Amino acid sequence: MKKENIEDTIVALATPPGIGAISVIRISGSNSFKAIDSIFAGKVKISGAESHTVHYGRILDNKESIDDVLVTVFKKPNSYTGEDSAEISSHGSPFIVKKIIELLLNKEIRPAEPGEFTKRAFLNNKIDLAQAEAVADIINSRTRNSARGARNQFDGKLSSNINEIKQKMVNISSFLEIELDFAEEEIEFVKRNELEKQVQNVINEINNLLDSYSYGKIIRDGVNVSIVGEPNVGKSSLLNSILKESRAIVSHIPGTTRDIIREDVSLNGFLFKLHDTAGIRFSEDEIEKEGIERSRNSVRNADLILFIGDAESEFAESLVSEMKILNKDAKTIRVFNKIDLIDGKGVKADVYISAKTGENIDQLIKILVNEISSTNSYTEKDAVIVNLRHYDCLKTAAENLKKAKESISKSMSGEFISSDIRAAVFALAELIGEVTPEDILNNIFSKFCIGK
Amino acid sequence: MKKENIEDTIVALATPPGIGAISVIRISGSNSFKAIDSIFAGKVKISGAESHTVHYGRILDNKESIDDVLVTVFKKPNSYTGEDSAEISSHGSPFIVKKIIELLLNKEIRPAEPGEFTKRAFLNNKIDLAQAEAVADIINSRTRNSARGARNQFDGKLSSNINEIKQKMVNISSFLEIELDFAEEEIEFVKRNELEKQVQNVINEINNLLDSYSYGKIIRDGVNVSIVGEPNVGKSSLLNSILKESRAIVSHIPGTTRDIIREDVSLNGFLFKLHDTAGIRFSEDEIEKEGIERSRNSVRNADLILFIGDAESEFAESLVSEMKILNKDAKTIRVFNKIDLIDGKGVKADVYISAKTGENIDQLIKILVNEISSTNSYTEKDAVIVNLRHYDCLKTAAENLKKAKESISKSMSGEFISSDIRAAVFALAELIGEVTPEDILNNIFSKFCIGK
Repeated sequence: MKKENIEDTIVALATPPGIGAISVIRISGSNSFKAIDSIFAGKVKISGAESHTVHYGRILDNKESIDDVLVTVFKKPNSYTGEDSAEISSHGSPFIVKKIIELLLNKEIRPAEPGEFTKRAFLNNKIDLAQAEAVADIINSRTRNSARGARNQFDGKLSSNINEIKQKMVNISSFLEIELDFAEEEIEFVKRNELEKQVQNVINEINNLLDSYSYGKIIRDGVNVSIVGEPNVGKSSLLNSILKESRAIVSHIPGTTRDIIREDVSLNGFLFKLHDTAGIRFSEDEIEKEGIERSRNSVRNADLILFIGDAESEFAESLVSEMKILNKDAKTIRVFNKIDLIDGKGVKADVYISAKTGENIDQLIKILVNEISSTNSYTEKDAVIVNLRHYDCLKTAAENLKKAKESISKSMSGEFISSDIRAAVFALAELIGEVTPEDILNNIFSKFCIGK
Repeated sequence: MKKENIEDTIVALATPPGIGAISVIRISGSNSFKAIDSIFAGKVKISGAESHTVHYGRILDNKESIDDVLVTVFKKPNSYTGEDSAEISSHGSPFIVKKIIELLLNKEIRPAEPGEFTKRAFLNNKIDLAQAEAVADIINSRTRNSARGARNQFDGKLSSNINEIKQKMVNISSFLEIELDFAEEEIEFVKRNELEKQVQNVINEINNLLDSYSYGKIIRDGVNVSIVGEPNVGKSSLLNSILKESRAIVSHIPGTTRDIIREDVSLNGFLFKLHDTAGIRFSEDEIEKEGIERSRNSVRNADLILFIGDAESEFAESLVSEMKILNKDAKTIRVFNKIDLIDGKGVKADVYISAKTGENIDQLIKILVNEISSTNSYTEKDAVIVNLRHYDCLKTAAENLKKAKESISKSMSGEFISSDIRAAVFALAELIGEVTPEDILNNIFSKFCIGK
């Protein structure tokens, strides 16, 4: 993202591109109303209109009507960005949208960079950085839980939690600094074991947040599931029967026969990314080898592995152990398929199904959801870390606090302790955007869509 | 389209589907404000809000926040539909949009049929039928001229023109009917030759509108251009050089090598649909045959045929005459290609170009645009027929007026004349929607997108 001037007035299409009933063009900056007035003919001037009012009129190119539109006025500071801003709601024709934006670009307005409206909201203190980041997550949310997680963060639950923790550290550090002021008198304001306890408490709180990240990653990005088994064991039909049962296909990523087929499905509010592997087996065929390598990669990245067996192949135990070598962290579920042919009772499995008839697929889905939610007892009210940047900031904070704790137990001078705690405070200030460097900011907002 | 109840309150996504900064959900009907209030928490109740005001708040599912939204209030009759209606502007996540619509569907609101908002605008006399139809054209407009044509119609130029003509016919018919009332006295209120002249004048006006349809079709749907020539004569590179010169590719419709490749391009505000034919020649290859048949169809549907020749193949005159048999109405342009190799001065052509270097491509484009606009002297101010339904209504009107004129010249009774004129009036009333049957209305609006 190139360095942009916050004084500029910016414009962008805010609705998804394409043909629709209406499209909305968003404008923000001090020049917004004047620029619109120069191309808009309505009953009133937009510059003179009250905030939060809507005005019907025409967009004119010289004297030619371009479209009938509604202009909504938001006066600073009561707008999304905190600046004077407006939305032009036009007919949803890409041609008309392009034309209106072109007219505005002639009026000392420039195209907005991705995320620039939200960046301005952040720079104008309408929201903090963690909240700004949640906006992108809200837009990209595809399941109930990802939307909830993003909302939670947008509502400032994470930010207030971080602020509380930060405040505790600032308090500790203040005491230490007062102590330093009286260093010559060798007064100990805080008992060292009491201090150690306080620091440990803060570390514990941070660790709780860090622990929530594995869950946060799942609610935000979904669960990778590899479906693994010998050829003809029914991997594809299993995939289809899960999709059929859930009736909530999120998206279909097509692949050739030798590719991994991936289907994204929402089960109980969680996004499951189901990878149908090409079947992992030894082959001399070059193309087949390629497919097998992709299968292995799918297994390496899996959060969950479904081993599929049937009466004929049962579970190829060598295959199972090979998979466990590829990925020892993934949870595994053993699925016995084709109970419409043989009940499979003699075979050790977690669930016995028929992908063909759909029998017990509901049970398999329950197990899948359970594997994800059982180990995670987070409720809607808890702050959950969904963002790697936040995770890294918290980790830095925790590491510095551990150093501080060590210095305390080694009875080192307050100066050392205080310096480590200040570094931890800084990491949290970076998380919520109080001291975040420009390049990190740019990196964050460049991942937004244009118009937000 | 199933029969819908106009008393229902309806909801639909109004912005294009997909991910974006914001999405707009549109609601219309008497229950709109009450329904929104039951899922919206803001500073004020929407039911109590003034028209054309915007309100920030939250959509709640029971107590859970779904999204922060802006609700815009439009009170009847000052709304698009003429009913109480509202727009909910949410974050542009398909998941959130789906959720909000679901919540509304639980509040005695049903999904809108395609075009139902505009249909209500029509039924509530906000716009007439020709204007309603223009809305769909505005949304689908892809070039300056198609947007202009649709605007023109939306602004009511066609409607007022039709109304004037209709009024003239009603006047004629009234005189005839008064005459009939005095039939026993055998009074002739209007001289028969005067009457004939008046009818002829109206026929002329209608014919002018009918004539505009060939131009109207072009500005609305574009010009079909077939690029024809022997293999290797440079058809594809010609296509590319036109695209490069115009820098206004509208869309690219990919095809396999044997398919017709089509590129839509806007030249001087007109949409040209350029079909690169597979090359028309004799072949035994079944797949090739298929391609050739498609080429022939492209030629059959063409408004313009570009014959491409070069020094080697020159113009295969047998091919040229074959094409003229396939489509005798299309205009033809002979293009000599590869002047970078041979100047081609000996060959008879309309333009001499090099697709490779781009030489004279601008000249070719000028010829293309000229072929379309020279024979059409319509200005922005003229009513132009762009719609087949309108064309058919006008044709019916003209035919009935011709019958009336015949009856006059045969000195038939005023009853016959009047009946024909009434049929013509009826056809125009159908055009602007005064007497349009329900199934025709449904057919018109079913072609709209949902949310409009």
